[in-house]
Amino acid sequence: MNISKFVMPEVIFGRGSLSQIGDSALRIGASKVFVVSDEDVINAGWVDKAKHYLHASGLETVTYAALTTNPKDYEVDEGLLRYLESGCDAIVVVGGGSPTDVAKAIAILATNGGVLRDYEGINKVTRPLPPMVIAPSTAGAGSEVTQFAIIVDSKRQLKMSIISKSLVPDIAIVDPELLRTKDSALAAATGIDAFTHGIETYVSLAATPMTEIHSLKCIELASQYLRKAVNDRSDMDANTNMSMASLTGGLALSNAILGATHAMTHQVDGLLDKHHGESNAAILPHVMEFNLPACPEKFRDIAIAMGEQVRGMTVEEAARQSIVAVNNLLSDIGLHQGLGEIGLPLDAIDRLSHNALNDACLVTNPRPASYEQIAEIFHKAM
Amino acid sequence: MNISKFVMPEVIFGRGSLSQIGDSALRIGASKVFVVSDEDVINAGWVDKAKHYLHASGLETVTYAALTTNPKDYEVDEGLLRYLESGCDAIVVVGGGSPTDVAKAIAILATNGGVLRDYEGINKVTRPLPPMVIAPSTAGAGSEVTQFAIIVDSKRQLKMSIISKSLVPDIAIVDPELLRTKDSALAAATGIDAFTHGIETYVSLAATPMTEIHSLKCIELASQYLRKAVNDRSDMDANTNMSMASLTGGLALSNAILGATHAMTHQVDGLLDKHHGESNAAILPHVMEFNLPACPEKFRDIAIAMGEQVRGMTVEEAARQSIVAVNNLLSDIGLHQGLGEIGLPLDAIDRLSHNALNDACLVTNPRPASYEQIAEIFHKAM
Ligand SMILES: [Fe+2]
Ligand SMILES: [Fe+2]
Repeated sequence: MNISKFVMPEVIFGRGSLSQIGDSALRIGASKVFVVSDEDVINAGWVDKAKHYLHASGLETVTYAALTTNPKDYEVDEGLLRYLESGCDAIVVVGGGSPTDVAKAIAILATNGGVLRDYEGINKVTRPLPPMVIAPSTAGAGSEVTQFAIIVDSKRQLKMSIISKSLVPDIAIVDPELLRTKDSALAAATGIDAFTHGIETYVSLAATPMTEIHSLKCIELASQYLRKAVNDRSDMDANTNMSMASLTGGLALSNAILGATHAMTHQVDGLLDKHHGESNAAILPHVMEFNLPACPEKFRDIAIAMGEQVRGMTVEEAARQSIVAVNNLLSDIGLHQGLGEIGLPLDAIDRLSHNALNDACLVTNPRPASYEQIAEIFHKAM
Repeated sequence: MNISKFVMPEVIFGRGSLSQIGDSALRIGASKVFVVSDEDVINAGWVDKAKHYLHASGLETVTYAALTTNPKDYEVDEGLLRYLESGCDAIVVVGGGSPTDVAKAIAILATNGGVLRDYEGINKVTRPLPPMVIAPSTAGAGSEVTQFAIIVDSKRQLKMSIISKSLVPDIAIVDPELLRTKDSALAAATGIDAFTHGIETYVSLAATPMTEIHSLKCIELASQYLRKAVNDRSDMDANTNMSMASLTGGLALSNAILGATHAMTHQVDGLLDKHHGESNAAILPHVMEFNLPACPEKFRDIAIAMGEQVRGMTVEEAARQSIVAVNNLLSDIGLHQGLGEIGLPLDAIDRLSHNALNDACLVTNPRPASYEQIAEIFHKAM
């Protein structure tokens, strides 16, 4: 075992925990709060509710909401201007992974200056960020606890990974009530993102005993509750358990990084602007197939965590059962589809494969992958 | 599921990670560091090594070391004077649970004033503490990651529990190399303390999915590696895994509190000044026996985490297997002894039982316990 680090924010978890947002903002020293969200979350009433709690704690607020499915560099630039002119001294997010990553990127530029590309990669952010509280409205990205911000570079049409300890917010408030107003398609896409975090982190070269327990919990909960959450959006037991799956997946990915699936979907998402969960769903089983020979015992553990019966099987057989189980899960939640079906043109594969080779997530993939091998996985996933 | 909170410091884990102590102290803003330790750790050379790294980072140091088995209020008072006259602006601990808790208590009084009894209980500490980095020299207490400080009140002859989020240090550096210089008896006592944290937190009324995964990992690792660590102090694989058991146990206890075993041993330790692990070993199986009817499924999980075969057993039978396994573990590491053997006089039980009723750890025990029931457990554990 080498030297590893594990960091996480303070986490407040549970139904109704949004009520803690005013007190939390006070504790991080806020006086005027920049609230980042999106139109859906605002229309569902969650931002008004959060502002009610913030105002009740004596705080002023300014709201910024102009966000699309994947977080874009130009949304960061616009948000930065709004932040700087607002006179705010803290950032609160009420929203999914996209507004969260936009808020983190605004925070970087607000105190560190420059442009986002300056911070692409690991540990490039040097100055402390404005204090942040994040209340996720989806169960998937896990960005409320990570040291990651993944932003679309609209010129290069790819997602930049910015990884730095200072991106871990001060407080994450995970209130499963906020999931009520999300539809089944979004629950499926975000849920499979969380599940993919569990799988990729468990087999990551940077996994540690501390991250492995979070990965397995994420896999176990998503296997058990994602179907229920998709089938019945009012099932608060399923929603609560998917919130926990997202949280544990986020803690695992923040500290163990990810793998080839994300190295590849970051390129697809930069090009297509489909939901990140859809591209994960198309690619994950094929990357599992590719990675399996590198760590069959770990894939057997995944099969067991997914509730598969593996007694009497060889390690190899049990490991393969994890892929069967993933394909079943994808079918059951309506996400068993190829990249072609979500709009990827065949002739994009060459460029995407080259770009995937440079993604930070490929470094921790358990099996080294060449340009040819990545291109082959892309073709299989079409 | 109610609203729960989970907090932990940044953790740096692994063989050789003590080398990060200078950089860590710099990152928390230190310029002159108050190093708290004990004579054994100093004689083993670890404090010199830590000071080497601190000095290499341009930091001045002042060392305080005058500590006994259980951390005492008068050691805190003396340390506080030394801290205040030293002009230090940060605290670094290189040592076990006892110097760590003394350092936390010094930190409380340094910025909050008053006397320790003012802070007994939950959330009584209001002002921020001096920044702290803690490098544990034992694998057991887990205090390097907890929001607890447990200090002996020498007048009342009991241990006070001070619980406050501000007691979570900034950075914990867990370097298993430091365990090399501890003998087998200490490895057994500290290891069984970690193991007891795993058991008590898993069945705690305040357990959450986030704490349960840490509890089970702690139980699993201690069951698998404590015997090896006791038998061969140079087995660095065993030492590393016991460090992880201590860490996961500490994270669980910080966020799920403990139970009746600790409510009772806090009283015994205040009276006898024996190692806290010895009193835990004497009491734990009897508290498990008492608690089992409240949550048999959880005790079955514990049996499974300990590696017991429970296939074909009823829940009740499987649950009871956890107690068999604990007694076997205690025998194998030479800690299967009663409270009488470690010096507890029969006539103390009355007073200790009354005091245990007021200990904060009793609140989260899975089965309510009356004075008579606690006294009966004490008698069984003699
Ligand atoms: Fe993702
Ligand atoms: Fe303990």
